[in-house]
Order: sequence, then structure tokens, then C-alpha cells
Amino acid sequence: MSITVVGSIAFDSVETPFGQRDRMLGGAATHFALAASLLDQVRLVGPVGDDFGDAELAVLRTRGSNIDDVERVAGGKTFFWKGKYGWDLNTRETLDTQLNVFEHFSPKLSEASRASDVLFLANIQPGLQLQVRQQCEAAKFVALDSMNLWIDIARDELLAIIGQVDCLVLNDEELRQLTGKPNLISAAHEILGSGPSIVVAKQGEYGSALITKDDFFALPAYPLHTVVDPTGAGDTFAGGFVGFIARQLGGGLSGDVLRNAMAYGTALASFNVERFGTEGLESVQAPAVHERVADLDRFARFDPIAVELIV
Amino acid sequence: MSITVVGSIAFDSVETPFGQRDRMLGGAATHFALAASLLDQVRLVGPVGDDFGDAELAVLRTRGSNIDDVERVAGGKTFFWKGKYGWDLNTRETLDTQLNVFEHFSPKLSEASRASDVLFLANIQPGLQLQVRQQCEAAKFVALDSMNLWIDIARDELLAIIGQVDCLVLNDEELRQLTGKPNLISAAHEILGSGPSIVVAKQGEYGSALITKDDFFALPAYPLHTVVDPTGAGDTFAGGFVGFIARQLGGGLSGDVLRNAMAYGTALASFNVERFGTEGLESVQAPAVHERVADLDRFARFDPIAVELIV
Repeated sequence: MSITVVGSIAFDSVETPFGQRDRMLGGAATHFALAASLLDQVRLVGPVGDDFGDAELAVLRTRGSNIDDVERVAGGKTFFWKGKYGWDLNTRETLDTQLNVFEHFSPKLSEASRASDVLFLANIQPGLQLQVRQQCEAAKFVALDSMNLWIDIARDELLAIIGQVDCLVLNDEELRQLTGKPNLISAAHEILGSGPSIVVAKQGEYGSALITKDDFFALPAYPLHTVVDPTGAGDTFAGGFVGFIARQLGGGLSGDVLRNAMAYGTALASFNVERFGTEGLESVQAPAVHERVADLDRFARFDPIAVELIV
Repeated sequence: MSITVVGSIAFDSVETPFGQRDRMLGGAATHFALAASLLDQVRLVGPVGDDFGDAELAVLRTRGSNIDDVERVAGGKTFFWKGKYGWDLNTRETLDTQLNVFEHFSPKLSEASRASDVLFLANIQPGLQLQVRQQCEAAKFVALDSMNLWIDIARDELLAIIGQVDCLVLNDEELRQLTGKPNLISAAHEILGSGPSIVVAKQGEYGSALITKDDFFALPAYPLHTVVDPTGAGDTFAGGFVGFIARQLGGGLSGDVLRNAMAYGTALASFNVERFGTEGLESVQAPAVHERVADLDRFARFDPIAVELIV
């Protein structure tokens, strides 16, 4: 199996109450790949500029990820984002966005990337996501992320590509915005009626919920005493989630596989937010991941005690 | 065992996207009692006015709750709250608050109420909570709720009474505000160092988290397609949570007891929010409660699938 991810590769300047970092390696495809590479072979697709160095390419190649389709645009500059988080890290303000090489990006997938069994369409313009989807006819599992911007300015295109994926991974408030339904469960079921068989609502510090036609599952975020930088948490989660599914795809997508995928996504996201940028996922080791997945199992489980109620 | 609850008994006028109701029976002690009465004998303590009728008293007596200490203040009017919820029910605006009989409330507990093994100090002025705490020397388990108002104007008094309870039940943003710590886990551990051995963070539509010195547990809210009126959800949750603990107190407070208490609180809160005011908890039946607790067990549990990670 291999996973193709198409999305942003970026430089991020981030200020949180815990410090400030300039021009760290970031971007949705980057964070996704660093997580998914723990579980399967990843192929990255996305543009970078002349300012993107060998050190950054080496990070993208972590755990054997393939960067043949990382396009270095001559004379171009890498996508840049600058943001500042509020004191509880639940709000953030975008201070600067420079699309740069993304402005005229047209995804060109090699034969190998088109042949992947699993495809993750990270948050980019929905029309580009559709182009990629059409190039990847062999994909057996396709997941997609998006953002409020595209709901605002390209809603019809977004709904068109959502109709052609297996799984939508979206922030819960964006699910509400997209469907116009204030209730998360109703919003998710509206999406389930339009194509995808799986909806994952990302809920930030509260964790995530998985909704299918017949099932519901939720996990809290991994409890941490210190969260340093939430940037990329959602993409890291998606990397663990999709990576686990890719790893298990041969056996079919049972409820257990999806639930474990949620646990791996949640555990990996916790390593991301403990450090700035890509530091956490570059250095994470397998025993620590397994330990946090086992913790999550304990944190979520209860063994029912029978009581008779007073009526 | 019996549970004494001291708190507001109120008339609520509520507007949500699903409708508007005037002067419904409400108040923290009311919602708490309706939930806890499914699990144990409840004794309500709180003032009402001349405008409080026999029909409302009958609701307070649901499932045998004792109202000997519901004080009818001659010439007084019952506490009144009027609020309006936003489209996703996650925001609400208070349109009117009339303290009325609460303005000069001085809790007088009968001998029977003072003798309860379990005490719930619902959200009232912290000085009054302390007075009640001192009257209930026999209590083996005391839980307390509060709100941002008291953190703002009576922080020292609030910290004083928190130091004398076993369990603090508070909205997660209020835990942050109270401790000045932006991180929920750090905030909870700061409280755990000041007296209580259990902190429950209420997280609205995201559910709730239980934090003790050595444990963490979280449950999502019960997934519903329609939420009609969230008023009283937190107090209903507290009623189920404290009620379950009261029921099991003889056997000691194991992690399993606390987790099941969370599940009962969560299940009962879901019946509250499905209907306006007290309608849901007045009519709830035991099999439906047990079914939702069993659902929550399934919604939160996953059986780990072992994978080797790529390193």
C-alpha cells in the first residue's frame, strides 16, 4: 500500500504564549506525511520555491516518504503563513498569508503517485482536489480536508469533490457551516447522504468524533499539561487516521479499524502540539506512540456497573 | 443514603431556535434533583416565592424527592431568568435576571438535610455554600458547582469553599478562569492540590472530562440529532453524576464508580436537552436511561489492534 497526499508545504511563523518561531517547516501535506509515514509509505505532492532547502527536503523524507512529486518552482517562493495564538490556544489570528507558488499550482502526479491505494486531499482549492481525485482512479480510500474559506467562496466545487470521496475530515464548526445544520450529528448525516461513508469531526482540544451511518465514536484529545503549538494538529491527526486505515485496508474497514485509526491520529497529534512545528513528529519513537494509544484506551473506556433506577 | 442539594429553584423564560417558553420551572437545584432522584433520595433546599404553585412543587417531588426545606417566602417572588440561545445553542445571552427571594436567602437546613451523606452545593454565592457546608458535618461526599460571576466578584470566598469539598464540577473555561491556567489539565491539577480529589470539567456539547491525581477519563455528550433547550444540562449531568456516586458510596469511590457516574450524568443530560425545561427528566423511564448508558459505553470504547510502526 502507499498513500498519496496532495497539499501545502509551507513556511510558518508562529507566536504562541510559549514562544515564537520564524519560518519553520509546515504545511498540511508536511504534517500529514510526518504522521502517516509511521504507518505506511507516503508520497507527497505539492509545490515549493527556491527558498526551500535540502534540510527541509530531508524532513519531508522522514521515515522514507517519497518526494518525487514535490515540485520545486524555479524563481518561486514557498507558501508562507504567519499566525498568533491566544492565551488558551483555542483562538488564532492569521497575520499574513502569502500563497506564492500555490497561486498557480496545478497538481501533476507521477504514475506512482496516481497508483496509490489511498489518497489524502489536504486543504487546498476544491477544484484542484477534484483534478487530483480524477488522476487517482486506482484509489480505494480517499479522504478530504477543507476549510471555511472554500465553504465561503467555492461551496459548489467543494460539494462536488466531497461527493467523490470516502471520508470527510473537517472541523466541527466547518461541518455546521458547510451544511447549514447547527447540530453536529445532523450535519454529519447530511454529508453521509451525499457520498462519503465516514465523517470525522475535528474538535480541537476536545478531540474528535467519527460518524458513520450506523455508528458513532468519540475520543478526547490526549491530555497534556503543556501544549506549545497547535499548528498542524489536525493534519497530524489526519495522517495517523488515514495512515492506520491504509495499513489495514486489505482487511476491510471495520468499526474497530476506524476506531483504532482515530486513536493513532489522536496520539500522534499530541506529539505534534507538544513542540513547535515538525519537531515532535520528527523525533517521535514507536514505544511512546503505542503507550499513548494504550493510555487513550484507558481514558475512554468504562465497565458498566448495573444499578436499578428509582421510578 | 440521601443527597441534599442547595441551589436555585427558578422560573426560566427561554428562547432557542426551536421555540420559546415562558416561566417554565427551572433552576439548578430543580434540574439536579430531577436527575439525582433516579438514583437516590434527594432533599431540596432553596427559596421560592408566593408565585410558586402546587404544580411546581409536585414536579420538585418527582420520584420521592423531599421538599421540606423548600422555603416559601411570604410576599416574595421566585428567582427568574430569561435567556436566548444562538443558532448552534453554544452561545446564550441573558436577557433578564431577577434574584427576588434569592437576594436575602439564608439557607436553613433541617436536621434531616444536615444528616445527608452526600451534599451538592449548586451554583450560588460561595459564602452561602460555605454556610451550608458547615451545617452538613456528616457529609461523606460533597460536590460543588459555581460560575464566572463568583470567580469575578468573590474569588477568595469561592477558593475557601472549594478547599472544603471532595469534587469540583465546573465548565472548562471557568476552570481556566479560576486558576489562571490556560491548559485544562494544569488547571484541574491546581484545583486537585487545593482540597478536592476529583475535578469534573463540563464541556457543553463536547461532553465532560474527569481528572483525579492519577486518572483521566472523558466522555462525549450523547449524540443527538436534535437539541432543543440546553438550559439545565450541566445541573442534570451533576445530578446523575452525584446520584450515582451516592448510590455506590458504601463501596468506596473506585475509578469504575466515577466513570459510571460520568456515564449516568451524560445520559441523563441528553434527556434534559431534548425537551424544554423539566419535560425530559419528568417523563424519562429507566430502560431508556440504561440504553443510553450502554450506548455511551459503545461510543467510547475501542479494542486496540496492534501494528508495528515504521521507524
